[in-house]
Amino acid sequence: MEKISVGILGATGMVGQNYIRLLDNHPWFEVVYVAASPGSAGKRYRDAVTGSWHMQTEIPKKAGALIVADANQISEAKGRCELLFSALEMDRKAVAELELGYASEGFAVVSNNSTHRWTEDVPMMIPEVNPHHLDIIPEQRKKREWSSGLIAVKSNCSIQSYMTPVYALERAGYKVGRMILSTLEALSGAGYPGPSAINVMDNIIPYIKDEEEKSEIEPNKVLARIENGAFVNHEPIKVSAHCNRVPVTHGHTACVSLEFAGQKPTLGDVRRIWKDFSGVPQELDLPFAPKQPIIYREEVDRPQPRKDRDKDKGMAVVVGRLRECPVFDIRFVGLHHNTVRGAAGGAILTAELLKARGYLGH
Amino acid sequence: MEKISVGILGATGMVGQNYIRLLDNHPWFEVVYVAASPGSAGKRYRDAVTGSWHMQTEIPKKAGALIVADANQISEAKGRCELLFSALEMDRKAVAELELGYASEGFAVVSNNSTHRWTEDVPMMIPEVNPHHLDIIPEQRKKREWSSGLIAVKSNCSIQSYMTPVYALERAGYKVGRMILSTLEALSGAGYPGPSAINVMDNIIPYIKDEEEKSEIEPNKVLARIENGAFVNHEPIKVSAHCNRVPVTHGHTACVSLEFAGQKPTLGDVRRIWKDFSGVPQELDLPFAPKQPIIYREEVDRPQPRKDRDKDKGMAVVVGRLRECPVFDIRFVGLHHNTVRGAAGGAILTAELLKARGYLGH
Amino acid sequence: MEKISVGILGATGMVGQNYIRLLDNHPWFEVVYVAASPGSAGKRYRDAVTGSWHMQTEIPKKAGALIVADANQISEAKGRCELLFSALEMDRKAVAELELGYASEGFAVVSNNSTHRWTEDVPMMIPEVNPHHLDIIPEQRKKREWSSGLIAVKSNCSIQSYMTPVYALERAGYKVGRMILSTLEALSGAGYPGPSAINVMDNIIPYIKDEEEKSEIEPNKVLARIENGAFVNHEPIKVSAHCNRVPVTHGHTACVSLEFAGQKPTLGDVRRIWKDFSGVPQELDLPFAPKQPIIYREEVDRPQPRKDRDKDKGMAVVVGRLRECPVFDIRFVGLHHNTVRGAAGGAILTAELLKARGYLGH
Amino acid sequence: MEKISVGILGATGMVGQNYIRLLDNHPWFEVVYVAASPGSAGKRYRDAVTGSWHMQTEIPKKAGALIVADANQISEAKGRCELLFSALEMDRKAVAELELGYASEGFAVVSNNSTHRWTEDVPMMIPEVNPHHLDIIPEQRKKREWSSGLIAVKSNCSIQSYMTPVYALERAGYKVGRMILSTLEALSGAGYPGPSAINVMDNIIPYIKDEEEKSEIEPNKVLARIENGAFVNHEPIKVSAHCNRVPVTHGHTACVSLEFAGQKPTLGDVRRIWKDFSGVPQELDLPFAPKQPIIYREEVDRPQPRKDRDKDKGMAVVVGRLRECPVFDIRFVGLHHNTVRGAAGGAILTAELLKARGYLGH
Repeated sequence: MEKISVGILGATGMVGQNYIRLLDNHPWFEVVYVAASPGSAGKRYRDAVTGSWHMQTEIPKKAGALIVADANQISEAKGRCELLFSALEMDRKAVAELELGYASEGFAVVSNNSTHRWTEDVPMMIPEVNPHHLDIIPEQRKKREWSSGLIAVKSNCSIQSYMTPVYALERAGYKVGRMILSTLEALSGAGYPGPSAINVMDNIIPYIKDEEEKSEIEPNKVLARIENGAFVNHEPIKVSAHCNRVPVTHGHTACVSLEFAGQKPTLGDVRRIWKDFSGVPQELDLPFAPKQPIIYREEVDRPQPRKDRDKDKGMAVVVGRLRECPVFDIRFVGLHHNTVRGAAGGAILTAELLKARGYLGH
Repeated sequence: MEKISVGILGATGMVGQNYIRLLDNHPWFEVVYVAASPGSAGKRYRDAVTGSWHMQTEIPKKAGALIVADANQISEAKGRCELLFSALEMDRKAVAELELGYASEGFAVVSNNSTHRWTEDVPMMIPEVNPHHLDIIPEQRKKREWSSGLIAVKSNCSIQSYMTPVYALERAGYKVGRMILSTLEALSGAGYPGPSAINVMDNIIPYIKDEEEKSEIEPNKVLARIENGAFVNHEPIKVSAHCNRVPVTHGHTACVSLEFAGQKPTLGDVRRIWKDFSGVPQELDLPFAPKQPIIYREEVDRPQPRKDRDKDKGMAVVVGRLRECPVFDIRFVGLHHNTVRGAAGGAILTAELLKARGYLGH
Repeated sequence: MEKISVGILGATGMVGQNYIRLLDNHPWFEVVYVAASPGSAGKRYRDAVTGSWHMQTEIPKKAGALIVADANQISEAKGRCELLFSALEMDRKAVAELELGYASEGFAVVSNNSTHRWTEDVPMMIPEVNPHHLDIIPEQRKKREWSSGLIAVKSNCSIQSYMTPVYALERAGYKVGRMILSTLEALSGAGYPGPSAINVMDNIIPYIKDEEEKSEIEPNKVLARIENGAFVNHEPIKVSAHCNRVPVTHGHTACVSLEFAGQKPTLGDVRRIWKDFSGVPQELDLPFAPKQPIIYREEVDRPQPRKDRDKDKGMAVVVGRLRECPVFDIRFVGLHHNTVRGAAGGAILTAELLKARGYLGH
Repeated sequence: MEKISVGILGATGMVGQNYIRLLDNHPWFEVVYVAASPGSAGKRYRDAVTGSWHMQTEIPKKAGALIVADANQISEAKGRCELLFSALEMDRKAVAELELGYASEGFAVVSNNSTHRWTEDVPMMIPEVNPHHLDIIPEQRKKREWSSGLIAVKSNCSIQSYMTPVYALERAGYKVGRMILSTLEALSGAGYPGPSAINVMDNIIPYIKDEEEKSEIEPNKVLARIENGAFVNHEPIKVSAHCNRVPVTHGHTACVSLEFAGQKPTLGDVRRIWKDFSGVPQELDLPFAPKQPIIYREEVDRPQPRKDRDKDKGMAVVVGRLRECPVFDIRFVGLHHNTVRGAAGGAILTAELLKARGYLGH
């Protein structure tokens, strides 16, 4: 099979580097194009990231040899790739226009940026949870008169520690009504350079700009239905999120108390539902799909970021400490790798789903 | 004024060392007696803690010169001191009996140990919240036929980041019905040596043994009334606590969502109630009483452990981020210094209250 | 005594904030003027540093109310203060000119910036080591035709963990010939924001730009004699410095192996020389002079940054682990508080010495 | 090829766990026997390490199912395995006798323990440096009247950040005379639990018990010749080591200044010698041999523990910052993974060399 040619917008930043790392030797996709700010344009990718390469593995040879293009010049990408992962870091308006520009020129754009999350006809994907949201794409193309282009986005990383577990319960017939949760989020969630070392040494910061707002509304788009070409959620979950930055490199943890709206499962039901959960990415055996999307740990003190974030190559959600909640119904701890599952890895899985569903290629 | 002679049980441990540090130059109390396990007995205090002195300040000269006694030998303390701070770390049954033994011999025992927290006639004190709980002491003495001895204990440190703020609201007429909260607790809460460095590096541990249970029931004894010589709480608050260990030396943080049972204050009411709050320790101008028991910080990202734990010598509760809760009524972040306010400092304040109320001395 | 009016150039940065903090209630100096970049000019100091105040203590009230001036406008400072502490962070050339400009207008400028360290007639001060270097000031004034202005600078912080101990040995007649040393330097040495948290978590960085070069040449100016109005060092110490950044907030540690050029002291001699050492700031009983400039710790595992950096309000050098060196003669570990002794505190001590020696005031 | 049956002594500790992890799917060796203290004996390995498994990967299935034997009972191992990796943690005398006991019963014992490092006829192996030291084994067997047993040990981990680079220079004809170095050693070097988190938070500890002594003498056995059946070093290197514990999970760093005894290479020579270095494990293509035993990094701020410790599966020594030393001849920074290259991985490589050289099997 010929690989699909892929470009990375914002390739020199931390999320962009994660794409380069994770796509090295991908069975379906091949990175042939990298673009960044005008300041990096014209350099070899290797040279553009020297001194600021943050991955533990070395720069892949092939990607390292690519010449960085200017991400603002849509025309430069034309004819060179068909799928674009966007890790652009500019002001929201510029990103919004640029991503639309690429899509209107026929590129499939899968974005980490938050700009288009609430654009009406753009799906906000967690592939195990809402694979059917891709059904909006024909609407998107029709309305915008795009023949082959498209835009899909991922949700905020903060909600991914619990959205798959929550969805698993809903799919099993246990509607969730309310949740109160606290997150302990990793440094890499803030991008690079992120917090100053001196600010988080012997400290935690109980505030992340805009994070609580995103965490409270995004679940309800992710869980929405498509009705008349729009995302509609008739029974939104009420969410209260307390978001904290903690001195951990990677891995967002969430402590969740949850109340059901209708019938309630037993703890045994919940545990079994999570352990047995499997989604469309698993059925389709997509390359980046974790074998077990929800790993339940029986140990009393897990999940823990350093020990559990890399499970199934960082693509699994790891859950533990399921117990009765004295105020709501149940409570638990969820964890995921924020720069893999919650960012570049999740976007790659979305692109794989797009491919499997026939939205890529001509 | 002649100072009251004081002894420390468990003087060589971390909490014991905090007593030694905090009582140095105390205006009312003078440490004249230190006791610990038989292994340390007979040594000079200075020598017994060499190599394991964890305080930032040096060992006070006078205390350093004391000869360590065997804490199991009640008779050794007799005639040497009248007030005992207990920081004993043994099995619960041994502590229970030993503390009772000391009290029955006429000592006033103020304990950090959790053993007697639920003993029916023992007050669990947060001096700003329940100073009237000392009224149980005449009952305690009568029932147990003690002439001058007594036992009082402090609550668990985990609840002190929010109990004074919660009480302040209740005193102002806003009854709290339910709370869901997450704590981010400091390493020193686990005593010494506490967690292994390798376990908490680049990590958090979402579990602390027995901590959630204590955090959920202790508030209701602290807020109880005394009826017929017993603590009774007709309207207990329902609490769900998620307790986490984070890589911070000192300072417990709590993220609290709170629902009122009856009428609800505005955010402005809450802020004003907290800023204006003052308790009996402040009225009595007790030496360890913080000037402002609840400090409200207006900055969007405070309180933070390293920046706020030492406010008012570590005796203030620092609160911030008050905002509407989308699920309950209000939410906020509270913080206190767990080894000062939440341990030795809080016990000293309790002893000062005992003194002011006439329960010490003959 | 009327206090000397003081201004801070670069008052909003981390070193500037340290000046504000340390000079609060200084017995001789009073901060009446603060200046920073044009962006901060015109704001109240309190407002200019809101959200970026890094000190543990609160913003002093009086300084907080000052209006920030533009540090580039020398005329604004005229008539308002006579002593200026410079914590300017601009390009070297701009700092060089600006500091000279202030001095030529009659201000006494004491600077933390490295720009003028090698200016021929500018003394690089460690007040316990080279108080007589102030004797260059009449030369400086004469040559530059300044009536009352002057410039004095402090040395790089990296060398202050061992320069006082080295000088103490030289003063006692033991000439040092060669040193090989490694530093473990704190984050705050890099200013704010300094290293990204994600870069130093579970990591150390074995490189600090220009730090080794400074560490190798500055000792020889600090230890120089004044001959014919210039600093001359006929017997420079050969130094090899390996400089590392470690995840510590404050406190630079140095591991030093040292070879004497002539006669060699015994370990007992060295220990006694250090314990007995006292300098001019101690004789003059200057407000910021540590009582004991060199504290020798007998414990096998000290000094340690968190436990020893605050000794004598952060102004003492703490030394330990003195032992024979199998390659050179002796070896030891030295530590000092880099933002107090090594920066703002050291500069204040220099200004106190200037005052005591009659170089301030008219 | 039938795999060689392997046992782990001290299998439940941190080094033991590393053996279990690293030997999973080893092409030549198969773990069939695990032994530990009597307290663990009789349990399944999986159960014995539950709650104390420190590896990032899960417990290998096969090893997890083994029943733990009592390491004190040599007879239990008989007939079940022929190669034993010893990670025993007992008092030195007990380890010394037990390891000899196993060897005298015919087992090949490769030990991480320091007990036999200075036993006259026991080789202290760094396989790239002194593979010929295995030639002592016939002497060992003859003298002790062992038919098939043997003992080989690894050197202390602290020296492995620089011994391969030093040896590479000596092999190229540049004799090293003196070295002064400082190590920044990881927490895992202290075993589990190792330092208390509260002791190393915002801190470094400039002392590791016995570490400097080991670091100063072991290089000279590693570099010795065998003469008349004994290790002899006519030209020992003089070493002065300053050993520090830093808050890093894994990866020991060393800052080394080095003086040659005779002719001196240029920096270019040194760089080339290191880049081109290859040893017997590489020639023999041993499974655990790193492809490039010395990796030289050109970046100005490398090697760094978190970024470089896992190079070549943690078996490479990573070197950087080669530069002139103003006091000695050259200086550089070296780094290795202390629990892989410096412990279990190094011992496995030694066992592979034993196998390749015909010392295993019958």
